[in-house]
Amino acid sequence: MRAFVTGGAGFIGSTLVDRLIGEGHEVRVYDNLSTGSERFLERAAESSRFSFVKGDLGDVDALRRAMTGSEIVFHLAANADVRFGLEHPRKDLDENTIGTFNVLEAMRLSGLRRIAFSSTGSVYGEPAVFPTPEDAPFPRQTSLYGASKLAGEALIQAYTEGFGFQAWVFRFVSILGERYSHGHVFDFVKALRRDPSQLRILGDGRQRKSYLYVGDCISAILLAVERSRDRLTLLNLGTDEYCEVDQSARWICEELGLHPSVSHGGGSRGWVGDSPFIFLDCGRARSLGWAPRLGIRDAVVRTVRYLVDNAWIMEERR
Amino acid sequence: MRAFVTGGAGFIGSTLVDRLIGEGHEVRVYDNLSTGSERFLERAAESSRFSFVKGDLGDVDALRRAMTGSEIVFHLAANADVRFGLEHPRKDLDENTIGTFNVLEAMRLSGLRRIAFSSTGSVYGEPAVFPTPEDAPFPRQTSLYGASKLAGEALIQAYTEGFGFQAWVFRFVSILGERYSHGHVFDFVKALRRDPSQLRILGDGRQRKSYLYVGDCISAILLAVERSRDRLTLLNLGTDEYCEVDQSARWICEELGLHPSVSHGGGSRGWVGDSPFIFLDCGRARSLGWAPRLGIRDAVVRTVRYLVDNAWIMEERR
Repeated sequence: MRAFVTGGAGFIGSTLVDRLIGEGHEVRVYDNLSTGSERFLERAAESSRFSFVKGDLGDVDALRRAMTGSEIVFHLAANADVRFGLEHPRKDLDENTIGTFNVLEAMRLSGLRRIAFSSTGSVYGEPAVFPTPEDAPFPRQTSLYGASKLAGEALIQAYTEGFGFQAWVFRFVSILGERYSHGHVFDFVKALRRDPSQLRILGDGRQRKSYLYVGDCISAILLAVERSRDRLTLLNLGTDEYCEVDQSARWICEELGLHPSVSHGGGSRGWVGDSPFIFLDCGRARSLGWAPRLGIRDAVVRTVRYLVDNAWIMEERR
Repeated sequence: MRAFVTGGAGFIGSTLVDRLIGEGHEVRVYDNLSTGSERFLERAAESSRFSFVKGDLGDVDALRRAMTGSEIVFHLAANADVRFGLEHPRKDLDENTIGTFNVLEAMRLSGLRRIAFSSTGSVYGEPAVFPTPEDAPFPRQTSLYGASKLAGEALIQAYTEGFGFQAWVFRFVSILGERYSHGHVFDFVKALRRDPSQLRILGDGRQRKSYLYVGDCISAILLAVERSRDRLTLLNLGTDEYCEVDQSARWICEELGLHPSVSHGGGSRGWVGDSPFIFLDCGRARSLGWAPRLGIRDAVVRTVRYLVDNAWIMEERR
């Protein structure tokens, strides 16, 4: 296929790009490099089937020109930072909601109709049902990030009805693995590099979170795109387990060979809008024949190893 | 209270304004008069407790200046046209999603934290459960209008969590009554004025729809704002009944004393994105002590009488 990948220079996007190139597809990446990195695309750039367009989601016309000739859009570009939404309330709206609208409009204008979208388990807010299925009761949004992604999903769905689009929407738990560059594992490893004697954990450390290895995430996306013929395919993606933040901190310290004194910020949430329990029912994705190969602990350990081997990434990011 | 009403020159907004003025409150209307009418505010304008600011939701700074000193925002300004969304895909995003974001930002910047919001039963798309409760399974959006209102709800919810806002979100069925100026009753009366001998009905006429009288809608809003102290109050508003479009057409013709030949466009939906069955579970609103006084038939008849007595409105609008 000829794939157009927004956010293709990012953590998940570049992993998808490598996989697509490896499977013989043509790939065009569209990325403004605001959080993505050209280093993530070095391997892909060796292929003649790869091309890169530096561009912003705000520019519908540039998007349209860049995607013309492609067959499917993997729309992964986003502000992926849940925690700092309240510091700049317009960012999630601009980059995730309006950005997604612009992708849809560019597709409509250039005759493309197939879109795979990275949404988030955050759209469930603080759900009442665990593991949380795709058709869980309508939640209250607790973060601008979740709200902006839910709005993106809603727009995509309206385009499936109104303009005959076919869409795959994936509600991810937090993703871990090579090229991972924000989130708690990143924060912990970075803090322990600065001071190996202590580790401060936001909240009470009992927050229960789910994680998925990036390779498993990509496998699910590609399998769903290949197998599901529905107008809208909506899938949770995660593992069948969860861990406490304290537990994950222990695995990280163990992998690093450190024994810091651990302190907690207190409260059941790490920050305003943090969900104290994320655990998705992924039976629908499994029924397509997908299963994650790595559990949470293995995903955490691989991520730590990657960060240790690629310390540059912690120097570039907050 | 000192109320700030966006869209206060519109059908529902101006009815709310009259009620608020009548109950002794101060009211400031903010409206760009794109679909609202100054004629709807003639009665309110006689009061010294009324003021009007002509302004657009796109202008956060004008919004902020206008709302300063108010205590609560009734955010009713919106593109309320479900049917023609596909003709101008950006309109719902701009006016309903970004417009709502701008209202929230203006509130945050000026220290206001109480917002009542007119959402829609369209956020349920084509639900599987009837009557549809507020916590129905997560729907697929079938219209840009529904998507844009769901996004507005999500933003408001995120502001309740992130910035301590208190919000009342109302998911309306279609509203009827005095000053009604778009929708099927409007279309039918207008068409029959042009040609009383025939009536063309979109779809097969068997679409089952719910309607609520505007006076009952306003009563519910004011009651909920007065009684519910929750951070987020989310209420369906409708009657405990529904009617078929053909049935409503018969009531209209009867009231007009006409016997047109009726033809149908065919298909189970009037247009792409039309929901063939809308019927909301309003038990939650009723548990606050609210009950609609008018049934659907009475609401249709009152609307027809209003349109006949105020034919100017049909000359101004498409």
